Amino acid sequence: MRLSLGELATRFGCELIGDPSIVIDRVATLANADAKSLSFFANRIYREQLRSTGAAAVISRPADAEDCPAAVLVAANPYLVYARVATLLHPQPGFAAGTHATAVVSPSARIAKGVYLGPHAVIADGAVIAKNAYIGPNCIVGERCSVGPDTHLIAAVTLVQDVQIGARGLVHPGVIIGSDGFGHATSDEGWVKVPQLGGVRIGDDVEVGSGTTIDRGAVDDTVIGNGVKLDNQIQIAHNVIVGEHTAMAAMTGIAGSTVIGKRCMFGGNGGATGHLTICDDVAVGACSLLTKNITSPGFYTNSFVAEDDKTWKRQVARFRRLGDLAARVKKLEKASGNK
Amino acid sequence: MRLSLGELATRFGCELIGDPSIVIDRVATLANADAKSLSFFANRIYREQLRSTGAAAVISRPADAEDCPAAVLVAANPYLVYARVATLLHPQPGFAAGTHATAVVSPSARIAKGVYLGPHAVIADGAVIAKNAYIGPNCIVGERCSVGPDTHLIAAVTLVQDVQIGARGLVHPGVIIGSDGFGHATSDEGWVKVPQLGGVRIGDDVEVGSGTTIDRGAVDDTVIGNGVKLDNQIQIAHNVIVGEHTAMAAMTGIAGSTVIGKRCMFGGNGGATGHLTICDDVAVGACSLLTKNITSPGFYTNSFVAEDDKTWKRQVARFRRLGDLAARVKKLEKASGNK
Amino acid sequence: MRLSLGELATRFGCELIGDPSIVIDRVATLANADAKSLSFFANRIYREQLRSTGAAAVISRPADAEDCPAAVLVAANPYLVYARVATLLHPQPGFAAGTHATAVVSPSARIAKGVYLGPHAVIADGAVIAKNAYIGPNCIVGERCSVGPDTHLIAAVTLVQDVQIGARGLVHPGVIIGSDGFGHATSDEGWVKVPQLGGVRIGDDVEVGSGTTIDRGAVDDTVIGNGVKLDNQIQIAHNVIVGEHTAMAAMTGIAGSTVIGKRCMFGGNGGATGHLTICDDVAVGACSLLTKNITSPGFYTNSFVAEDDKTWKRQVARFRRLGDLAARVKKLEKASGNK
Repeated sequence: MRLSLGELATRFGCELIGDPSIVIDRVATLANADAKSLSFFANRIYREQLRSTGAAAVISRPADAEDCPAAVLVAANPYLVYARVATLLHPQPGFAAGTHATAVVSPSARIAKGVYLGPHAVIADGAVIAKNAYIGPNCIVGERCSVGPDTHLIAAVTLVQDVQIGARGLVHPGVIIGSDGFGHATSDEGWVKVPQLGGVRIGDDVEVGSGTTIDRGAVDDTVIGNGVKLDNQIQIAHNVIVGEHTAMAAMTGIAGSTVIGKRCMFGGNGGATGHLTICDDVAVGACSLLTKNITSPGFYTNSFVAEDDKTWKRQVARFRRLGDLAARVKKLEKASGNK
Repeated sequence: MRLSLGELATRFGCELIGDPSIVIDRVATLANADAKSLSFFANRIYREQLRSTGAAAVISRPADAEDCPAAVLVAANPYLVYARVATLLHPQPGFAAGTHATAVVSPSARIAKGVYLGPHAVIADGAVIAKNAYIGPNCIVGERCSVGPDTHLIAAVTLVQDVQIGARGLVHPGVIIGSDGFGHATSDEGWVKVPQLGGVRIGDDVEVGSGTTIDRGAVDDTVIGNGVKLDNQIQIAHNVIVGEHTAMAAMTGIAGSTVIGKRCMFGGNGGATGHLTICDDVAVGACSLLTKNITSPGFYTNSFVAEDDKTWKRQVARFRRLGDLAARVKKLEKASGNK
Repeated sequence: MRLSLGELATRFGCELIGDPSIVIDRVATLANADAKSLSFFANRIYREQLRSTGAAAVISRPADAEDCPAAVLVAANPYLVYARVATLLHPQPGFAAGTHATAVVSPSARIAKGVYLGPHAVIADGAVIAKNAYIGPNCIVGERCSVGPDTHLIAAVTLVQDVQIGARGLVHPGVIIGSDGFGHATSDEGWVKVPQLGGVRIGDDVEVGSGTTIDRGAVDDTVIGNGVKLDNQIQIAHNVIVGEHTAMAAMTGIAGSTVIGKRCMFGGNGGATGHLTICDDVAVGACSLLTKNITSPGFYTNSFVAEDDKTWKRQVARFRRLGDLAARVKKLEKASGNK
């Protein structure tokens, strides 16, 4: 698709600084753009790349426009405008409905119109696939699972049982939804399994990254709200509730029964312990762990920065002598009559 | 199934406070229970839910019985009794033995009676499947692997080769057992692969959560003891030995050749570095990392609590000035003749 | 295969202390070696096992030779010589070329000579499989992916689309390469997906461990250099560049657009935040997180050691009172006229 900057400015409500007749046909990074490319500038780390870009045009904030050597589409949120332009220029390929000869479909499953069932897909008893859903190769849709309209299971996704996914979902390969939560009671003979009886309910417009696991509830369901975005290799334990439009970066783990608010953001490789309540609009740093209820929106973190090992070891040694240091201060205070 | 409280009290050896003729037919959470439901109270965070529950009866500790607005089955370990009642009321559905038409089974594999082999299952040369085992859709049982009696591989499980699983195991989707350990020797031309030659031996009554990986040994086997319970996305490296009845929460990682004792518990997203020996009955906090041998049972941890970012940053700044603070204290000590 | 110590010494350029006519036929650990076994000693934790080994011979550094109760192959890098001997004694079994009857192969895919396509493999439109590649059971090679000569996809690997893997690669089960990066722009209506348009380019001699995920680039490609070794359950986000011969232990996560140098090593369960540049020859400790650019080679870390919970909690309490301690020192300084 080819579009002029004038058309783009009109369509996306941007001010245009430059020639409206310039035509672009693809998006590109600042570093690799050419005279047919549109790029964007949203992260100031890349200012040098902006200054030397070969792009025909750049989407940028008003304050950065003067640093652009090319035409500028001015936007308050350049990344958002970029997302929309890129979607327009590079539409997802469609798919032809149909069932591959190697797919295994239960007679009791209900498959709507416009559905694609790929090679080696398995659709179990009582499963429901809504219209225009895409079930890629090697996916398993287990008993009593339902997949909403226009939802895509890309490949090798496993919905174990009693999983409901809403409309326009996007589930990447290797995702496993609806397997048993981790529940074991102690006994004199070792662990006794606590039956996991609940399901998983996932709202509309949810994206789930590769290798993420979402367990079924112990009794009630595990719930993922509308518009939630989960990156790769995330773990959502049984009976977690994730509020609408919350986003989690890769390797976040949320332990059992924790309730996460709306519009929260997790920075990756951290998460939350079990049975917590986290309010709306909480952001959590990378490698940071929530262990208490959070009642005020804000940014929470507890990570240190990696330092060269010698510096860090010295620092840890000081940390371990804190008790000694405090005792010495106390002694000085006594001696000085200060306390 | 419908059972009276009197029958339950007798069967599980609980004192009953309330009418023994009350009949229940399902388990439920305190919040969602109705007059046909049995619930349990084991975590005092949920005391408000206990006070307002609509359950017909609640399993609780003696000390909590008076807070229950319903009949009470009194138990020293309510969660254990709950596990047993729930298992009784909600039995796992059975399965019909047989081999799906799309399963691929090597002529040299030995398949016992009562086994189910699901769609697209692959059973390789020399594999042995014991009686009443369940091999779900898209599972791979590699060369010379054996699956014990009554063990279930739910779906999309991969046993790579030389993996032995005992009786009554439960392996969830996406688990990979028996792939190469991570062994590479340095050389002037880069890394040289160290052949991984061992297998994996898994005891009886082991549960392995979704997406967990357990590597084959480098020379000797990797070993998982009887009754071990592993949650999702755990990594067990080559030649790790996990003692009987140890439990690990999600995202725990154990590096190569570490030996973990019996009845240990790992809180998730932490783990242990390689070549360690951890004694029996060690508990490890969430996001905590063992880096030394542990010789005394107990609870070990090294995690901080996430705080609001401003507070945390100020705290880290103080931490980084510890050397300065110590120097100032020393100076004061000298000046005061205190040291 | 049976080899004499004399032959081994000659072939691998080691000094031999002992009888050159001794024949060995396998490798073994020090603890489990017998009179037909060759073992190695590289980690001094195992000195007791060295002293009591039943091995016919041991590969060791010169300094450790005198502790060996058996013949010694003396090597500066015993682990490297061990790797080469083990490869010689225990060669990988070959495979017969061919396409399993249940594999699904697009007419537009190009399959070279000597290729094996296993049960339920799916080879999509435009895929290219080079000579002597092995595509194991349940693997998916998506659209426009290419697999280099002698590369092995062991089983249940998913290459989503536009993934290029070089020669002699080894990709373990459950690996997912080429799924969408995590890119979402904020808007008043929630997250707006940023199309992920790039591919993944993987060099020669790369090993990728079980369950690892490598996302496609947002616009440009994600790149993994020659000789890179990735352990299990690693996450490589979109547009990461990993330099040649870098190795990462399990559960490392690298956030988007970060550039990692050559010959770096990551210790597992840590990683790096996004948009960083890490120079060559950087080592990172287990559970440590890089959050800033690194410009000097060296060993970087920020992990604490797990301690018994009571000790740790006391230490954290002291840490939280650091502000108070600093204020008290300031007061003493004032009182003493020291500052």
